[in-house]
Amino acid sequence: MPIDNSNMLKVIEDFPHQCKTALELTKGMSVSGKFNKIIVCGMGGSALGGDLLKIYMHKSKIPVFVVRDYKVPNFLDENTLVFAVSYSGNTEETLAAFEEAQKKNAKIVAVTSGGDLAYKSKRVIKIPSGLQPRAALGYTFFPVLGVLVNSNIIEVDNDEIQEMLDILSKTNEFKSAGENIAKKIKSRTPIIYSSDFLGTVAYRWKTQFNENSKSPAFYHTFSEMNHNEIAGYQTMGKDKFMSIFIRDKNDNERIKKRMDITKEIISSKVDVEEVFTKGEFLLSRIFSGIYYGDFASYYLALANRVDPTPVTVIENLKKKLK
Amino acid sequence: MPIDNSNMLKVIEDFPHQCKTALELTKGMSVSGKFNKIIVCGMGGSALGGDLLKIYMHKSKIPVFVVRDYKVPNFLDENTLVFAVSYSGNTEETLAAFEEAQKKNAKIVAVTSGGDLAYKSKRVIKIPSGLQPRAALGYTFFPVLGVLVNSNIIEVDNDEIQEMLDILSKTNEFKSAGENIAKKIKSRTPIIYSSDFLGTVAYRWKTQFNENSKSPAFYHTFSEMNHNEIAGYQTMGKDKFMSIFIRDKNDNERIKKRMDITKEIISSKVDVEEVFTKGEFLLSRIFSGIYYGDFASYYLALANRVDPTPVTVIENLKKKLK
Repeated sequence: MPIDNSNMLKVIEDFPHQCKTALELTKGMSVSGKFNKIIVCGMGGSALGGDLLKIYMHKSKIPVFVVRDYKVPNFLDENTLVFAVSYSGNTEETLAAFEEAQKKNAKIVAVTSGGDLAYKSKRVIKIPSGLQPRAALGYTFFPVLGVLVNSNIIEVDNDEIQEMLDILSKTNEFKSAGENIAKKIKSRTPIIYSSDFLGTVAYRWKTQFNENSKSPAFYHTFSEMNHNEIAGYQTMGKDKFMSIFIRDKNDNERIKKRMDITKEIISSKVDVEEVFTKGEFLLSRIFSGIYYGDFASYYLALANRVDPTPVTVIENLKKKLK
Repeated sequence: MPIDNSNMLKVIEDFPHQCKTALELTKGMSVSGKFNKIIVCGMGGSALGGDLLKIYMHKSKIPVFVVRDYKVPNFLDENTLVFAVSYSGNTEETLAAFEEAQKKNAKIVAVTSGGDLAYKSKRVIKIPSGLQPRAALGYTFFPVLGVLVNSNIIEVDNDEIQEMLDILSKTNEFKSAGENIAKKIKSRTPIIYSSDFLGTVAYRWKTQFNENSKSPAFYHTFSEMNHNEIAGYQTMGKDKFMSIFIRDKNDNERIKKRMDITKEIISSKVDVEEVFTKGEFLLSRIFSGIYYGDFASYYLALANRVDPTPVTVIENLKKKLK
């Protein structure tokens, strides 16, 4: 096992503990006001918590928008609750969006470990620094959830939190499953699929393969992929690509059937691997789905003989942008 | 040139005329009511018009949502204007969403050439049948725009329409540029990028390569790709992938700089091709960006020796789903 200089494995193994710590960070912290929209501004790993919030709030009457851009939507107004999430606090897109939101008198909560964002914000949830942003998903998601619970905007059952922590704590199961998947991928490009509802889980796998494994990786969702992407398999081959389906017992019955039939159809063109989320509650199902992929991306990094932690190209790009 | 049995080339060439016809379809047709949300339900090619509407309405105070699923969001209510778009009128996801929206007393306009959707809807915009849904983008987008203009929900300048028709009418420019791009792609997998704002244009290219060319194809947007996907280029090679940047003169200056630097960085790993949208107005820029890709996907089909029109695998899947 040659290259894991910054101990990404340890950080991934520590994820259940990170979630637990993150849940404590917003004790007693709330916002007042009547909101008819929630907007989460962020990029990369720091935007993912917003995507997860969108899934989690699917039963709410308040729509959630995730903005990965320099600009905020024109419908953002004083009845909008904005979370500006930047792990470093120096993400230029998020800072630009934050400033636009301020001008429009939105109520803004910043989630950051420091940087300009911490300096410029009135309401800051300070999260621990020293991690890669993508490795801090617990810190960028649960504080947002915490504030919304404290502000009576959503409810989260304690049993749900407990189930999630219990499931994630069985770290070795995820670890060995992830290692297994990485072995099967070999040097091929993984394409990850889930239901449209859990699309962010598939997107997380993709980005972890990109950043940790330095591998190309793509994603799409069911049933939309049945209307276009599936046709592309006609000219594909088992040497170049591999497909991974993330399945959830609460997937719509038609989506389940679509996944079964799609697997059957594309199996002559690619190897298909299936991963099943765990748990009864939504939080467990989301985070168990993600946790397999985190380990898979770690082991694919080792197989690719790259250090999972540094993303040198992204750092270089940022320098050139200055 | 062996295989174009159903004359997809002619259908693509006819697109400016299709747009013109589509613009006439809703003369005098409007909806009454005060709406604070617009939801477009559809799948595949029939959902794309909704995505384009979202771009087009970026200055509006009314948010636009596109639903590619069996279910509608929980915040859909009687103040929501819903467009149910299904070219065939028999798309099961769209029909399910339509029925849910009906139960919630939303005002619904159906856009379809027939099928169950035409049968079940009170308000129908009937569009001409006989095309592949993806080839009917003019028919699925402009009638929606027309109803919104007639209902005083948005304004569209006549000069904007005229500029778009003038630009698209120079069909041969798009055709030869598209042919050129297809030649450069060869048997590699194209990855298409645009700004986040114009992301649907990049997605359209991807889906056209999937359906017309039967080729794998993927897409992502700037600057999000700078936060993850770019790291995957480390293990990529010029033999497998090729990247296409769709650029727009109104792209944010930082996005422009990011595209320049990204091109420089990834050029050692892939060939990068740039395509520039045309025109001053947004409609021209959107549809010129799309039109290049439509032709490119056609010529890539010929290079792949596949008939661009039938998507047999999608038809087979639908049969198995019954």
